[in-house]
Amino acid sequence: MDTFDIKKFLREKQEIVVQALDELMLPAKGVFADHITAMRYSLFVGGKRVRPILCLAAGSAISSDPEIEFRLLPVACALECIHTYSLIHDDLPAMDDDDLRRGSPTCHKKFGEAEAILAGDGLLTYAFDLLSDPRHERGLSGQARLAIIQAIARAAGSPGMVGGQALDMAAEGKQIEFDHLRAIHRSKTGALITASVLAGAIGGGAGTDQLADMRRFGDSIGLAFQIVDDLLDVISTTEELGKTAGSDAAQNKATYPAFFGVDRTRELAEEAVSQSLAALERFDERADPLRALARYIVDRTK
Amino acid sequence: MDTFDIKKFLREKQEIVVQALDELMLPAKGVFADHITAMRYSLFVGGKRVRPILCLAAGSAISSDPEIEFRLLPVACALECIHTYSLIHDDLPAMDDDDLRRGSPTCHKKFGEAEAILAGDGLLTYAFDLLSDPRHERGLSGQARLAIIQAIARAAGSPGMVGGQALDMAAEGKQIEFDHLRAIHRSKTGALITASVLAGAIGGGAGTDQLADMRRFGDSIGLAFQIVDDLLDVISTTEELGKTAGSDAAQNKATYPAFFGVDRTRELAEEAVSQSLAALERFDERADPLRALARYIVDRTK
Repeated sequence: MDTFDIKKFLREKQEIVVQALDELMLPAKGVFADHITAMRYSLFVGGKRVRPILCLAAGSAISSDPEIEFRLLPVACALECIHTYSLIHDDLPAMDDDDLRRGSPTCHKKFGEAEAILAGDGLLTYAFDLLSDPRHERGLSGQARLAIIQAIARAAGSPGMVGGQALDMAAEGKQIEFDHLRAIHRSKTGALITASVLAGAIGGGAGTDQLADMRRFGDSIGLAFQIVDDLLDVISTTEELGKTAGSDAAQNKATYPAFFGVDRTRELAEEAVSQSLAALERFDERADPLRALARYIVDRTK
Repeated sequence: MDTFDIKKFLREKQEIVVQALDELMLPAKGVFADHITAMRYSLFVGGKRVRPILCLAAGSAISSDPEIEFRLLPVACALECIHTYSLIHDDLPAMDDDDLRRGSPTCHKKFGEAEAILAGDGLLTYAFDLLSDPRHERGLSGQARLAIIQAIARAAGSPGMVGGQALDMAAEGKQIEFDHLRAIHRSKTGALITASVLAGAIGGGAGTDQLADMRRFGDSIGLAFQIVDDLLDVISTTEELGKTAGSDAAQNKATYPAFFGVDRTRELAEEAVSQSLAALERFDERADPLRALARYIVDRTK
């Protein structure tokens, strides 16, 4: 475990995910070429591919089927489509109004606001197209695929990511309680990370107890991830971050560092990672990539 | 058939759909109450409920199961959620910039632009939540539910409604060929209408031939519907229409009346309705509501 090369693992899986996205995403041809070009731009402009990789790693932690990664790739790609749509819409002038994302112009800066709204809508909808497409079922049962769609839709929607963004917008410039910040984090970022883990686990054939463990794991690394994101916004430069650094503070947003200071925020991130590792206690070495991913999240701040 | 009271039928089905939407939509309670209030506002501000009613009527044309309407109601509601989201996003300042919809302020006028984007995102995502929720499966098979999700996602997304709106935006103020206008209509409006019919038919247990007939029916009434919408924009007052009349011409949009004049456009609408009726030739009297719906669409212009 200590010798697990997480950077190599991430590079390999990122490559697999990007190749699958390229194959599974609509081609920028025909009458809708311009619209699809905008979607593909945001999909391929960069990104760590954390959600699809979590999905693949969760599936491999549950299942010893050598084909499990192949079977889960359409699900992994659907998760990345949803994550990318959420970034496009969050960056819009009416929302966070960001010009830079992953070191490049945001979708609306590049293609205009109308096209960016539609690129987001298209990516969100395409996720559910992919998840239900019989050409991409890859041996997953109908029951598993419906459960995956349900987990992802619930997490991405109003009770999750979309609702979280609405809370986040409403909280801007206001004094909010810490509980409220937690609710924003859980819904805006945590829900889809947990769903990524669950989708992989369901596809891998997890039983009820395993799903409960995976949910605890997902919730904890989702929390760690958001804490670290808040922290990076404070301690990084814009160049390192690939998006405008310090924008949380500039927008007067409630964040972990604003509540607890940088040092205590680091400790809280470490605690969340420890909780995520504890959730994996009953899993064998096939869960090592998940464990390494959990550590990697907090190591980004060092 | 000639005595079929379409207005009474529509009133009854509208009431059933609105009640089901109220029951099946997220309640405006808890931490996300404000966001859900915006979604519910647009969902209940009015609307003819054409897509859900087509879905129910298609199911009843295929199946003699007395419970078929009950079984299909979550699917019907999902279709209305998607239609409503598309109106909210189309009305945004960056898109058609409309202040009035169904006789009331548009979502962004009422709740602001950020909340309107999120209300749309939430409604779109909730449609797939509903369609995959095991609490609302109502005896439909997993296979049927996946096929319904697939038909709806394909029609609502980039190869359909979203792509059509992108084409429509790109065509604004430009001279376009009639074939291009047809492509816009088919994708922007036609695709989801066809999917509404197909979703009901799949849920009703349609075989391959029946699905092909239903697809022809859906395509033809989708075309009729769009032609009539173009026509109503020309011949109605804003009060009658519940949205700003004459906005197509004001925005220099390509429309059927712009290509063919009002009289020939009326004829083309009649022809599309005749084609839709021909597609139902092999169906018995259980398809009478579908037939009456087809006639009703074009009668709105008289």
